[in-house]
Amino acid sequence: MIDINCDLGESYGVYKLGQDSFMMPEVTSVNIACGFHAGDPQIISETIEMAIHHNLRIGAHPGFPDLQGFGRRNMVMTPNEIYNMVLYQIGAFSAFLKVHDYPLHHVKPHGALYNMAAVNEEYAAPIVRAIADFDSSIKLYALSGSILATVAERAGLPVFHEVFADRTYQNDGTLTPRSCKNALIKDDQQAIQQVVNLVESGKVLSVDGKWIPLKADTVCIHGDGEHALMFAQKLRKQLVKKEG
Amino acid sequence: MIDINCDLGESYGVYKLGQDSFMMPEVTSVNIACGFHAGDPQIISETIEMAIHHNLRIGAHPGFPDLQGFGRRNMVMTPNEIYNMVLYQIGAFSAFLKVHDYPLHHVKPHGALYNMAAVNEEYAAPIVRAIADFDSSIKLYALSGSILATVAERAGLPVFHEVFADRTYQNDGTLTPRSCKNALIKDDQQAIQQVVNLVESGKVLSVDGKWIPLKADTVCIHGDGEHALMFAQKLRKQLVKKEG
Amino acid sequence: MIDINCDLGESYGVYKLGQDSFMMPEVTSVNIACGFHAGDPQIISETIEMAIHHNLRIGAHPGFPDLQGFGRRNMVMTPNEIYNMVLYQIGAFSAFLKVHDYPLHHVKPHGALYNMAAVNEEYAAPIVRAIADFDSSIKLYALSGSILATVAERAGLPVFHEVFADRTYQNDGTLTPRSCKNALIKDDQQAIQQVVNLVESGKVLSVDGKWIPLKADTVCIHGDGEHALMFAQKLRKQLVKKEG
Amino acid sequence: MIDINCDLGESYGVYKLGQDSFMMPEVTSVNIACGFHAGDPQIISETIEMAIHHNLRIGAHPGFPDLQGFGRRNMVMTPNEIYNMVLYQIGAFSAFLKVHDYPLHHVKPHGALYNMAAVNEEYAAPIVRAIADFDSSIKLYALSGSILATVAERAGLPVFHEVFADRTYQNDGTLTPRSCKNALIKDDQQAIQQVVNLVESGKVLSVDGKWIPLKADTVCIHGDGEHALMFAQKLRKQLVKKEG
Repeated sequence: MIDINCDLGESYGVYKLGQDSFMMPEVTSVNIACGFHAGDPQIISETIEMAIHHNLRIGAHPGFPDLQGFGRRNMVMTPNEIYNMVLYQIGAFSAFLKVHDYPLHHVKPHGALYNMAAVNEEYAAPIVRAIADFDSSIKLYALSGSILATVAERAGLPVFHEVFADRTYQNDGTLTPRSCKNALIKDDQQAIQQVVNLVESGKVLSVDGKWIPLKADTVCIHGDGEHALMFAQKLRKQLVKKEG
Repeated sequence: MIDINCDLGESYGVYKLGQDSFMMPEVTSVNIACGFHAGDPQIISETIEMAIHHNLRIGAHPGFPDLQGFGRRNMVMTPNEIYNMVLYQIGAFSAFLKVHDYPLHHVKPHGALYNMAAVNEEYAAPIVRAIADFDSSIKLYALSGSILATVAERAGLPVFHEVFADRTYQNDGTLTPRSCKNALIKDDQQAIQQVVNLVESGKVLSVDGKWIPLKADTVCIHGDGEHALMFAQKLRKQLVKKEG
Repeated sequence: MIDINCDLGESYGVYKLGQDSFMMPEVTSVNIACGFHAGDPQIISETIEMAIHHNLRIGAHPGFPDLQGFGRRNMVMTPNEIYNMVLYQIGAFSAFLKVHDYPLHHVKPHGALYNMAAVNEEYAAPIVRAIADFDSSIKLYALSGSILATVAERAGLPVFHEVFADRTYQNDGTLTPRSCKNALIKDDQQAIQQVVNLVESGKVLSVDGKWIPLKADTVCIHGDGEHALMFAQKLRKQLVKKEG
Repeated sequence: MIDINCDLGESYGVYKLGQDSFMMPEVTSVNIACGFHAGDPQIISETIEMAIHHNLRIGAHPGFPDLQGFGRRNMVMTPNEIYNMVLYQIGAFSAFLKVHDYPLHHVKPHGALYNMAAVNEEYAAPIVRAIADFDSSIKLYALSGSILATVAERAGLPVFHEVFADRTYQNDGTLTPRSCKNALIKDDQQAIQQVVNLVESGKVLSVDGKWIPLKADTVCIHGDGEHALMFAQKLRKQLVKKEG
């Protein structure tokens, strides 16, 4: 079955975000915040214990040092700063796995870091180097067809190409920008069908009605909001049935 | 020769502290800040590279999350919070060693965390557990005769008993509080003699003129200020001569 | 009617805490976080606008610089550090009132700062000085009978003595420590009766069954949780009825 | 005489930056960091006291919330976030002036915020609004000829057009980007002459040898490094002589 991933462990201190305990049974891998854009040592510890209990693939989810902006605001950094920022977060996070003797399966950059690295080699390259220098067997979750994915493959890092169930695609395989009206797929069945198509044919139907080839190793679903849980359950059910 | 350690890597962003490049040739081990009370990913990276170049024993120097107070202000935390806070910092720090395939030799708590753990088992125990869970071969640098040292030895963690060259001792082997007039040894020769005595006889002359037994595996020297460098050079010279 | 106050504006970035819009109609004054233990410039701005809309007495709610611990962890600071920390927060907060030409009614220290200042003059004095230096007509909300209240009155600062509806009291007028079994009043009617007693007779029934005099200018109620809202409505109703 | 301004109060906690006590006698106005990119409540308090002692024009110097990057890294924020971020810092800062009954003379955005606002109305407008809403008699220090200056003047806010002694200018009156070889004027006499020209003729000689009109109400000089002090002394002497 295609990997289903979700960003979790995004609480901070007394602040609770997401419904981690409900989402975990519905996914196969989790991306856990590392303390810069969300998460703190307590939250990381608790979330990892929960994810181990569910026997999930656990990934580090490093982001910009911007708690107020939840790592969603672009920040201009040098490649060296990005390398060290990512390495620091991977290291901190992996310590909590080490004490449980559980492997770090992957790394997925968060928010603005993910988006900037998808289109800018200056951001992509140091992320790839940080992961590869730390442990070159760790998978990188990157937007399918992105510069980040390309840079990683060129460097020999294993890549999980990530697709989105509820986002539409352009003819060139990129996501329709959120600023466009048709950026989001609001109908659950249509969103699930998009994933099924990707799994079965390796293709996605673009907003212009063309079938576009797109690698799909993992699908990202939301972890926040009541609807997120319902959708996760439906998607999982459908995918399990297909694989029957 | 007795280990000589120094706190380095305490700069932050554009802020420079200490004279790391000058101190490194004079010591045998370094305690490098991990980003909570001082240091940031850039500084950690640069300091570790410098310390590897000098072939030093490298230690993590975790502290309270209090950059403004430089980790010198007591903070009340639960044992669980301390465990996770220390584990996070050790992990983040060790990632920068891992990419150089260089070992993490020791951990030394910083400032208020060091002082609180020296006298309070509620603070000592989670520090010891975090280190042991991460890697039980890592040494703990703890105040000689402190509760932290005792808790660590009880747990089977290797301990380096730390002494100070320029601090006076009480009859019970504890440091004279800084609030007392005679807390500091200001004469270099006397400070060096105290270290020589500890190395040769395992004893220190208390403020009351009694010879007190005190374990001394490592001596801590300051890394800041022009005098620090001069003293380090004198101490090193004297210790090398003694060992002939 | 006795002033009813509530801590609000305790969200941060994407993190939502409390049910500010529901609580505001039930209280007469609000204590709004200033960005150190909770709150950020966005949250402060939105919360103040909402409080002005409800025509409430607005107070600054400064706390320790400890977002992860929500300002509930004791921190050791010098009087000078406390003075400047409180002044900074009052100033930042009052700017958002100034642009609306709305008065700053009071200051209430938060969490660990409130508790430490209640029993320690070293913490109480600089808080009082910071408020008085900024504007000596601002009220200080302080635990009734606390050292903070005494220090403020001695300095000529107007004090609102604060009582709690759901906390029990000792014979000496202090709160029963939370570590004791009977610290909390869990029955709503009993909690409301305690407030009514304080308003009508200026006395509280201690855990030992003695009637203790206690100044009560303002009663603090919780702003978080579904029950908080229900209790606020009941208390308000009862107090309005009494005053007929 | 033309106003000479300098960024000071940029220390943080134990970290010392600049040579504030030496620079103050050489300038007429200071821009003091407000705690986001540099400075903390202690530093703000001390720096303001020193500046009052020297009877200087005191300005707030708000920046991005990025201590590690010293506010020099571009951050993408919404106009609303910028407005509240600037208002918060102005308020916090002005509290320290209020307790001394000393006026807030001006506001000068710092680093990346200054540069982004110079060319982007989305950043300029909320800065101007925050200042004007707080107190419309406060001066804004903005790059001469910048969008920030234009937006402020349009809004009726008094503007001090800022020029640089040691930066070269293009034919269109903009600064030569730092990435260009000839961006900096390294010869002191030439830098001073540029200021003298601006004061006497309101013109600057561009890198292409053209005389360009440029408003010059204040000249910014550096506060860090031994040379900074020497240059400040020379510049001041020359300007005083000219004004005879």
